[in-house]
Amino acid sequence: MIEGIAASSGIAIAKAYQLVTPELTYDIKPIDNPDNEINRLDEALEKAKQELEKIKQHTKKEMGDEHAEIFSAHLLVLDDPELVNPIKDKIRNDHTMAEAALKETTDMFIDMFKNMDNAYMRERAADIQDVTKRVMAHLLGVTFPNPALIDEEVIVIARDLTPSDTAQLNRQFVKGFATDVGGRTSHSAIMARSLEIPAVVGTKDVTNEIKQDDTVIIDGLEGKVIINPSEEELTTYKEKQATFERQKEEWAKLKDEPTMTADKEQVELVANIGTPEDAASVLDNGGEGVGLYRTEFLYMGKSQLPSEDEQYEAYKSVLEKMEDKPVVVRTLDIGGDKELEYLDLPDELNPFLGFRAIRFCLENEQIFRTQLRALLRASVYGNLKIMFPMIATLEEFHQAKAILLDEKQNLQNEGTSVSDNIEVGIMVEIPSTAVIAKQFAKEVDFFSIGTNDLIQYTMAADRMNEHVSYLYQPYHPAILNLVNHVIEAAHHENKWVGMCGEMAGDAIAIPALLGLGLDEFSMSASSILPARSQLRGLSKEKMASFKDKLLSMGTSEEVVAFIKEKTEH
Amino acid sequence: MIEGIAASSGIAIAKAYQLVTPELTYDIKPIDNPDNEINRLDEALEKAKQELEKIKQHTKKEMGDEHAEIFSAHLLVLDDPELVNPIKDKIRNDHTMAEAALKETTDMFIDMFKNMDNAYMRERAADIQDVTKRVMAHLLGVTFPNPALIDEEVIVIARDLTPSDTAQLNRQFVKGFATDVGGRTSHSAIMARSLEIPAVVGTKDVTNEIKQDDTVIIDGLEGKVIINPSEEELTTYKEKQATFERQKEEWAKLKDEPTMTADKEQVELVANIGTPEDAASVLDNGGEGVGLYRTEFLYMGKSQLPSEDEQYEAYKSVLEKMEDKPVVVRTLDIGGDKELEYLDLPDELNPFLGFRAIRFCLENEQIFRTQLRALLRASVYGNLKIMFPMIATLEEFHQAKAILLDEKQNLQNEGTSVSDNIEVGIMVEIPSTAVIAKQFAKEVDFFSIGTNDLIQYTMAADRMNEHVSYLYQPYHPAILNLVNHVIEAAHHENKWVGMCGEMAGDAIAIPALLGLGLDEFSMSASSILPARSQLRGLSKEKMASFKDKLLSMGTSEEVVAFIKEKTEH
Repeated sequence: MIEGIAASSGIAIAKAYQLVTPELTYDIKPIDNPDNEINRLDEALEKAKQELEKIKQHTKKEMGDEHAEIFSAHLLVLDDPELVNPIKDKIRNDHTMAEAALKETTDMFIDMFKNMDNAYMRERAADIQDVTKRVMAHLLGVTFPNPALIDEEVIVIARDLTPSDTAQLNRQFVKGFATDVGGRTSHSAIMARSLEIPAVVGTKDVTNEIKQDDTVIIDGLEGKVIINPSEEELTTYKEKQATFERQKEEWAKLKDEPTMTADKEQVELVANIGTPEDAASVLDNGGEGVGLYRTEFLYMGKSQLPSEDEQYEAYKSVLEKMEDKPVVVRTLDIGGDKELEYLDLPDELNPFLGFRAIRFCLENEQIFRTQLRALLRASVYGNLKIMFPMIATLEEFHQAKAILLDEKQNLQNEGTSVSDNIEVGIMVEIPSTAVIAKQFAKEVDFFSIGTNDLIQYTMAADRMNEHVSYLYQPYHPAILNLVNHVIEAAHHENKWVGMCGEMAGDAIAIPALLGLGLDEFSMSASSILPARSQLRGLSKEKMASFKDKLLSMGTSEEVVAFIKEKTEH
Repeated sequence: MIEGIAASSGIAIAKAYQLVTPELTYDIKPIDNPDNEINRLDEALEKAKQELEKIKQHTKKEMGDEHAEIFSAHLLVLDDPELVNPIKDKIRNDHTMAEAALKETTDMFIDMFKNMDNAYMRERAADIQDVTKRVMAHLLGVTFPNPALIDEEVIVIARDLTPSDTAQLNRQFVKGFATDVGGRTSHSAIMARSLEIPAVVGTKDVTNEIKQDDTVIIDGLEGKVIINPSEEELTTYKEKQATFERQKEEWAKLKDEPTMTADKEQVELVANIGTPEDAASVLDNGGEGVGLYRTEFLYMGKSQLPSEDEQYEAYKSVLEKMEDKPVVVRTLDIGGDKELEYLDLPDELNPFLGFRAIRFCLENEQIFRTQLRALLRASVYGNLKIMFPMIATLEEFHQAKAILLDEKQNLQNEGTSVSDNIEVGIMVEIPSTAVIAKQFAKEVDFFSIGTNDLIQYTMAADRMNEHVSYLYQPYHPAILNLVNHVIEAAHHENKWVGMCGEMAGDAIAIPALLGLGLDEFSMSASSILPARSQLRGLSKEKMASFKDKLLSMGTSEEVVAFIKEKTEH
């Protein structure tokens, strides 16, 4: 049994699929017969081709033509006689084993292309590198995995899952996953909750402990991974799974209920989404709106910026699907750890403290204006609220809002109708903005506290860095004090405050946030019904009465113990 | 005239010395006579040798044997027949010009050594690279500069100055400098103030605008660089220089005066130092103590950790030199942008949010304990205060203090005497610690606000990143509110608060900080007398009466305008 971080709830039982690049080393051995080696090479090439064809088809189906192109490029490499013939020549002339001939030849091409001052040729080097690994794996008789190749029910085991891995996962077959690294706010964790499959992350070495085809239980409720369970364990976990399913059925009954506390105070439970397709799941899970639409997904995995019309269609689609429920759209948050290949963003020593989000948009006004125009045009189809990310100073808000009003005027002059009821707010994710929330509250229509970043800046700890991730402490008294300060400042000006970090859906944090007076909780769609269920059992007045005590505590540990004590029945 | 950031005050007039690596490109030309090329190569080798010998001697004198070793290694490269003969063979056999033969041959060796899995050989690759550039410069007839080669009065012009550049500067001849990049808190700016020479940084393109041997005026008071000044300008600036010298004489009279405001309130003016040698300049400048002794310089530019005795001698020396004046020693702040070659610190995506300072020390307890033992042993020689950097949580302070007390007990058990009056405090440079200063104030003996980091975390902007350095705003209301919050929390518990960031010596910030009640201002030694002079003209009561107004402002711009208005006579 391995312990990790419970990243997405539920129980899954299936065979392990190791999504881990295998060691591709070999010992140099003399060869008897070059023809045998050439046959081995041809077989490996053929198998690699079949796999790539399969991956290409799957990617095309799941993600569209554009994403599948990379695999067409890989297939071309395998068919290129200028690459394949020199490998065969080397085997024949130097009596080299196929592995060595493959490696030496491709290394030479890779080096040559890499050093060219030409982006196209450097991409070719990357293609050859990828393809070589796959062919080498076949020569060595090891599996070179790919998410698209999964064709039976499995638990995916990986060091980490990248956005492109998860995009390729065949959702029908992946029943759960476990990773070595990551925390509750890492990409793989967020993705698991969005796919509603159990996941355990941050196990440190699950990839070493589990072998391909081991039977694995993922306990996403308690953050445990059980390897090759006994009959007894299997029975226990099947029961636990059934209990969880019954619990989900109970939650489902709350789908159309308002979010009301035990003392009849209403709060809003909304969802974080990344694409228009996610809207359906928000409604299925009883979400009362969208608290954070991350528009950067519109910009990612493409070869150029999305056009105004393309964006307009996406925003309109979300607004229409959500009927008249509120939809908070965050303007482009790119930079930091989110790059766009087609924009030449600067390399930075500390990208999290760098040129991103609103900082980028105010310097690249044309990109920003296109997005704002698309939003304004879509605004008549629902209840749109616009939110600027990474605001650190009042000047930035003034500039961004002025550009928005300017584009509204332009559209109206062109005769395009634009809603007159668009609220304009900001993310509070930079400490400076939380500290002078009073000054901001006079000017914005609402705040949404982005705890993922707020915590990492407040604690000066990169949450992705395993050496300091222990400092990513959502329950730290400094965070609670900043959240309280923001809520008090907003309420003083009759503005509302939401929270769209992972903290908003966290069962320990919810009672504290309710007591501090948070108005809107935005979370993964799958967390909404459990949160509604939890809130129905909490008294806002009681939680508020603990506020001073909570804010004067010294450590996260004390905070957690106190909340647990006060919410036990 | 070029404008930049005034980084160190005063006026300097001298010839320009371009500390800029020249373009080392050449056009391939056919050669008539290989012997001529070999002669050209020999001459270039000989000139490079002479220069390296000079640099080596100078480095040995200024920085010691260990630092000079690298140049011995470079000289060995120049004498190595296994490198030199292949170049000559290439000239002879291929009828190649000397430049091409040099480049192609050395490139081959560099590539070969670089790709070896052996740190020693990779260093050899770097040596060959450095030496090749110097020889190539002589072949091309261009100057390959080195700070150690300066032998007449000059203004150094550079893109930026690294710590190793400044360490090699011949202080006798360098009258000032101007750089393309950097701000008031960059290494080159801090170094200029410590050397007490005028400097202008962040000019963007001074290296392109100025040619070798141009006459240059550096106006470190207003941040201007004047190139080839007219007679009239020369006269004006010589007068300005004389006025500044008279001003300095006036300031010098305050050397032994207490730091007293116009309304007879006393504050403490102390200095930031990096080495024991800096202590003399603190006393010369009327410093009332050391507010920040950056101990990491003891650990840098070496091949191994400094021993306990080596550290003990350094700490003892500072304490003795400062007599019984307070000396605040910051424990090791390594990591982030400060690496130690002999420690294998992890590569990090965001080093400023990473594994550094106290985070590193608590994980590497033996290194930490050695430093604490050295400090405790030295404590009997003066008025030592120990300060932990980068404290983000109470637990970290508890752990660090427990280790300190444990080592104190160990030393006492061994019969070594340790002072019983050592105050133990923390840097407040992480927002979380400023936010819950009340909780910390109950436990620490003092706070020292480290504004350089506090500002960059609070604004979520890397101050070294030119795309976002505009967000490094010391006068931002969020910073003033945090500073105020820390001072109020400390005074409530009768603890004192210092500030050891660059902000503490800033003429705009000083009136605001005085009004907020700051007790101790720690700055570059050369800023102490001007600050004392400024404080004598300020009323603390008057400044305190503006506090609420100041803290409710929205932007840095408003703050600066307000302070200027309220301090004008």
